[in-house]
Amino acid sequence: MGTTQLEPVPEPKYWHLRTVLSEALDSDFAVGEILPNERDLAARFGVARATLRQALEQLELEGRLQRRRGVGTTVAPPRMGVAVGAEQHSWPGASGDTWQPVDCAEANPPAAVAGLLDTDADEQVHTVRRTRMTHGQPVAAELLYVPGGSVPGLTAIGAPAGTARARAVLRELQRLDLEGQDQSVELGSARADDAKELDRLPGAPVLVVTTRYFAEGRTVAVAVATYRADTCRLTFGESGGVQITHAGEGRRAS
Amino acid sequence: MGTTQLEPVPEPKYWHLRTVLSEALDSDFAVGEILPNERDLAARFGVARATLRQALEQLELEGRLQRRRGVGTTVAPPRMGVAVGAEQHSWPGASGDTWQPVDCAEANPPAAVAGLLDTDADEQVHTVRRTRMTHGQPVAAELLYVPGGSVPGLTAIGAPAGTARARAVLRELQRLDLEGQDQSVELGSARADDAKELDRLPGAPVLVVTTRYFAEGRTVAVAVATYRADTCRLTFGESGGVQITHAGEGRRAS
Repeated sequence: MGTTQLEPVPEPKYWHLRTVLSEALDSDFAVGEILPNERDLAARFGVARATLRQALEQLELEGRLQRRRGVGTTVAPPRMGVAVGAEQHSWPGASGDTWQPVDCAEANPPAAVAGLLDTDADEQVHTVRRTRMTHGQPVAAELLYVPGGSVPGLTAIGAPAGTARARAVLRELQRLDLEGQDQSVELGSARADDAKELDRLPGAPVLVVTTRYFAEGRTVAVAVATYRADTCRLTFGESGGVQITHAGEGRRAS
Repeated sequence: MGTTQLEPVPEPKYWHLRTVLSEALDSDFAVGEILPNERDLAARFGVARATLRQALEQLELEGRLQRRRGVGTTVAPPRMGVAVGAEQHSWPGASGDTWQPVDCAEANPPAAVAGLLDTDADEQVHTVRRTRMTHGQPVAAELLYVPGGSVPGLTAIGAPAGTARARAVLRELQRLDLEGQDQSVELGSARADDAKELDRLPGAPVLVVTTRYFAEGRTVAVAVATYRADTCRLTFGESGGVQITHAGEGRRAS
């Protein structure tokens, strides 16, 4: 988006370098190619190492570069479009769902989730952990919080934890008549357990999608999903039935 | 979300400190309160300055802390929920729209946008700049790209640029029959001009929302909106007509 400034604004040095580097990535490098080391790059562009590093960090944040220990800095492939908002609302675990249940436990939800569910702060709820895979890669980790009151039929089932229990909770939830759902997206940092599942370091930037499921006039479940911000572009909504050519779709809009 | 780890995972030191600090923010500090300086904080928690700084950066990324030059580090207010996905689709500039047109120019769109619009790389399009204000604060900056072919009636109108021109482009766009729209959200960094409008430094993390508007069986306009990632939580979708109590809604879900 650097070519469409309507008003010229003075730019810090690293920001100018980021723009120059971004253009160089487009013209001189292929996806997956390893960049020269920092010393060589700094010399090539006539800047200090600190300036170069700031520019590389920007491009990593924008998903243009990947830095991996033992490999170096490589040119990132375009971000994957991952459908988040569904045209037709459905329960988690319904057919067509791309999430895999991993585990289930009883746990105290975070205060914010307890607030949305209107449960007491010390009330344990069914906590289903799920993973979303795309092209064999984990792109998101989710915790789905379901209070006991939402799945009253569950107690009859034996397994206290694990995948079988997770499936049972999802099955019971699907008995309810889904009245609606809403979602929010915000920037967060990966918790240690999510980071491990997503093959990232704890604290890596993630997009946190919180979904509330409504039935019986109240919030019956809350899902908090953590998407890799470096590789994912979250997509919402329908195209109104219009067939659209996805020319250039792969490239990011920046 | 630190209390619901289903499996214990070893955590780096700064990540543990982030969790401890996060709890301290909840219990010992009020919104807007200035934190002790780094030297004192590092001593209080018995960690190196570098570790402390990493933990503070995490909390800033999560929107818990704000760092402002000349003020110091303060406890951030809860993020604002900003509605992005509309239940009823409508053209930009339609009644009820919270965006203010600022300017309009002819410009080459970025390659990704040209791809979505299916215009030639060197084709100039009407580029409307708009700003979104919430509680008197700018929360987002947008560039709306409209090819000449989408607004054939526009040439008759005199003003070559500026707010009047922006309004004219929006008015002409609204003559078309909106068939659908879709949206995507990804992490980006603020360009210099957007950063200035959003009162941030260039490169600050932002949430980039790209909206495609469909009419006449094709993409007739593309909007690229840049939201402050530190203060905004983007909300999507409807609540199915259900009245929901927003208990604890203000707190972040992490």
